[in-house]
Amino acid sequence: MMLSEAIAGYIPLIEEELRSLLEPPNRAVAGHYEIMQYHLGWRDQALQPSTAPAGKRLRPLLCLLGCAAAGGNPLDALPAAAGLELLHNFSLLHDDIEDRSETRRHRPTAWSIWGVPIACNVGDGMFSLAHLAFFRLRDRGVPESVVATVLQRFIEMALALTEGQYLDMSFEQRLDVSVADYDAMIAGKTGALLGVAPEIGALIGGASVEEAACYRQYGAALGRAFQLQDDILGIWGDEQQTGKSTASDILTKKKTLPVLIAMNHPGVGATLRALYAGDAFDEADVGKVLVLLDRAAARVATEEAIGEAMQAARSALRRVTGSGDLATQRVLAELLDNLVARSS
Amino acid sequence: MMLSEAIAGYIPLIEEELRSLLEPPNRAVAGHYEIMQYHLGWRDQALQPSTAPAGKRLRPLLCLLGCAAAGGNPLDALPAAAGLELLHNFSLLHDDIEDRSETRRHRPTAWSIWGVPIACNVGDGMFSLAHLAFFRLRDRGVPESVVATVLQRFIEMALALTEGQYLDMSFEQRLDVSVADYDAMIAGKTGALLGVAPEIGALIGGASVEEAACYRQYGAALGRAFQLQDDILGIWGDEQQTGKSTASDILTKKKTLPVLIAMNHPGVGATLRALYAGDAFDEADVGKVLVLLDRAAARVATEEAIGEAMQAARSALRRVTGSGDLATQRVLAELLDNLVARSS
Repeated sequence: MMLSEAIAGYIPLIEEELRSLLEPPNRAVAGHYEIMQYHLGWRDQALQPSTAPAGKRLRPLLCLLGCAAAGGNPLDALPAAAGLELLHNFSLLHDDIEDRSETRRHRPTAWSIWGVPIACNVGDGMFSLAHLAFFRLRDRGVPESVVATVLQRFIEMALALTEGQYLDMSFEQRLDVSVADYDAMIAGKTGALLGVAPEIGALIGGASVEEAACYRQYGAALGRAFQLQDDILGIWGDEQQTGKSTASDILTKKKTLPVLIAMNHPGVGATLRALYAGDAFDEADVGKVLVLLDRAAARVATEEAIGEAMQAARSALRRVTGSGDLATQRVLAELLDNLVARSS
Repeated sequence: MMLSEAIAGYIPLIEEELRSLLEPPNRAVAGHYEIMQYHLGWRDQALQPSTAPAGKRLRPLLCLLGCAAAGGNPLDALPAAAGLELLHNFSLLHDDIEDRSETRRHRPTAWSIWGVPIACNVGDGMFSLAHLAFFRLRDRGVPESVVATVLQRFIEMALALTEGQYLDMSFEQRLDVSVADYDAMIAGKTGALLGVAPEIGALIGGASVEEAACYRQYGAALGRAFQLQDDILGIWGDEQQTGKSTASDILTKKKTLPVLIAMNHPGVGATLRALYAGDAFDEADVGKVLVLLDRAAARVATEEAIGEAMQAARSALRRVTGSGDLATQRVLAELLDNLVARSS
């Protein structure tokens, strides 16, 4: 199997599972569910059926691949895969409110159309539906004890996600953020969910707790590489390809890894921190920041960190080779390479 | 046992369980947890330890009493009781954001101190902790299958809560809300959580699914009576006792049951709807509304509905008499009478 075949085979099944989870139970609350459907790309602003480009469905894909890689039937993991995607989208709904983001995937965000009160509550509804999805695992013959284990891992991950978001928001007010602080933040915000996705799949597929931990390490390291690649694109990405203006993360003063490396650099750190302590940036300031990042070799250091994360992901995958399904484990390796090689 | 003895015995144990759940896992995210602790009344605005008047802890109390009434050891249900209280407080954190409420229990709300982004995320963290609490039931010897059943009931309830909140918000824009619509809304917003609290307790205490359903019906009916009593106090309550100005629910145009009874009354409905369709109310409008409510006999009709809900709660309790612990079942009846007899 190739990654492209896995995507073509799994995505329609994931969409079907998601759609059945977001079916309104009655007419009176239909709007509550239809706004969730809007967020997932199935309805337009007038809540009429439509097809907007959906997300990558990376988390459910990792879950099904984890299940198959552990030697299980990937269809057994579909409810968990859908739960993971709903949890991811719940967090996007609330992040958009918290970051005041007005667009996502080229469409207005839910809060910007229906207001913060409705969108916050719609997110809470999706949060509960994400958890409820796991009880459907029973209908696919997954043993009670496995359902309990994966649900517990899922809830612990959801808590870690809020801790990561807390750290991210607290960094905005701080100039003393260390690289270790940043690592802890992205471990919560990106790594927790991407780690738990293949781990839960593997547990459903019959992996031991130790093997499942390897899949978690693979996913968490993939998440780290993915996030750091995002950090590079946010500063040095091609506007044509990313759809964001070059240096957009500098203009918004985001404390991503390259910036933090330079802020903690003995030569340029003090100058950079002083620049970030001031008011809004203009284009000239952006130029100054780019020079300082260059002097701190921040891009190279970030690329090295990506290389290390990729190595960690590959070595975690190698630790499970020998049990489960080698062909699917190769697809997981392919997914890792593809994700990090992206330019947008 | 009397209700006062149950309260004196159980509340400290509930507080202890809650405190151990809200312990920060590390210093970096301490603020995330300390804001939760502020909301529960254990810290002041500077996040220093303090003692503010806590809530009634009604939901955990109902859970422990449900467990004892079913013949179980109430201590077995402590983690679930704490989870129910955390879910209630999660919903208050988000409701305060959604309703733009600046004070709760005579203190500033979390969002009004730390802002919407932080408070929304703190609520999400508390939501996850509420669910995690249920896995502690295992440590108290509650069988896996019971843990799974009560956690599923808990998550279904959390979803119902968001549906109730959705309906409540949608009513603000509507003048055609029926009494049946209102019943569906409060069943979600108040009844679901108050119903599931004693039901979950009873299941942990060894009740059959049928017996547990009686406890749920008791709690849901108690919730309905409680909410309708609140509706009466919001219009005709004594300012000295409720802490709100008389007719506060009229001034804010809240569509509570007395108002909806009058809006759907053949004689005064059209006049009342026309009044509510206009802009902000002044004192003269409030007077007119009170006259219309009087002509529709809205207070009497609401009091009758409270009487019916109390009867439904008592009859649900009678259906379990014969199994479990009669003395605790009497405490549940006492709790019902006390709650509805309140004047604030």
